[in-house]
Amino acid sequence: MALKKGYAMQDCSLARTLELVGERWTMLVIRDAFYGVRRYSDFLAHLDIPRAVLSGRLRTLTEAGVLDKRRYADSPPRDEYVLTDKGRQLWPALYALLSWGEAHALGSQPARRIYAHAACGRRLSPGGGCEECGVGAVPPEDIELHPGPGADHPDRQDPVSRALLTPHRLLVPLETSV
Amino acid sequence: MALKKGYAMQDCSLARTLELVGERWTMLVIRDAFYGVRRYSDFLAHLDIPRAVLSGRLRTLTEAGVLDKRRYADSPPRDEYVLTDKGRQLWPALYALLSWGEAHALGSQPARRIYAHAACGRRLSPGGGCEECGVGAVPPEDIELHPGPGADHPDRQDPVSRALLTPHRLLVPLETSV
Repeated sequence: MALKKGYAMQDCSLARTLELVGERWTMLVIRDAFYGVRRYSDFLAHLDIPRAVLSGRLRTLTEAGVLDKRRYADSPPRDEYVLTDKGRQLWPALYALLSWGEAHALGSQPARRIYAHAACGRRLSPGGGCEECGVGAVPPEDIELHPGPGADHPDRQDPVSRALLTPHRLLVPLETSV
Repeated sequence: MALKKGYAMQDCSLARTLELVGERWTMLVIRDAFYGVRRYSDFLAHLDIPRAVLSGRLRTLTEAGVLDKRRYADSPPRDEYVLTDKGRQLWPALYALLSWGEAHALGSQPARRIYAHAACGRRLSPGGGCEECGVGAVPPEDIELHPGPGADHPDRQDPVSRALLTPHRLLVPLETSV
């Protein structure tokens, strides 16, 4: 991806990070990967994203080592995209953005999804910890996603939205084809 | 700002947040505001950003209540832009993105800036806390910015870059005109 001169001059780690994850849609692709979405068709259906844009974002994230592309079927050839360790380390940034949005960007609209500590069921704090267990930062694999009070969006009938209407552990592959 | 239909459907708090802060340059404007940059001319010089883009981002952030626009001189009229409480609450997300970038996006390039706990001088942990003092999340007003080993970028001669070559407390207005 060609950098504009000015932006390239901003060689701080934030600018570099935004080059990668600051593109429109990219963080939503990463969010879905944390939800357990792995297949192109599921990203496509859940994000309502143009095919060319989705393909581009998946390619960029794979090249950057955030997602790992794995062949899971040969005829026809089908790949899935799985967060790498580097990708999983984006969780604190993703959750901090989510959490700020919940406090400030949703207005009076209730949360669509609740992030809970799987061990105790307590909702995560805005900082991403569990006050019940005294854990400062709950790792994504210990987080369970629950539908929130705003979950029943009547326009969302895609397989991912439907699968997420029941509690689901982050990073566990989402069963969308049943 | 008109939303594309698909993106607007993504009514989770992350999508809403990215509508606001996910635009190219926006997080760099917010980063600079944490550094103590308040004036249009300083944002402009430090970010090498096209004027129209900077004006648009400042307007959007002001309308969204992230920045507060304050008149500081009347003839000629001059405004400054200061983070609101809502804006300051973006710190955990900003630091998490920075921190991920430092670990993964900079490659072998050393950090340009070091974030330290002002009370003890210890460098913040990747999670934004102070291990010396046992503080889980150091608030931005308690953070001092130091030039890092990669600070001396020969191409950066603007007033903000120069002012940041000495330690500076976050959120304290940056003295650029002396």
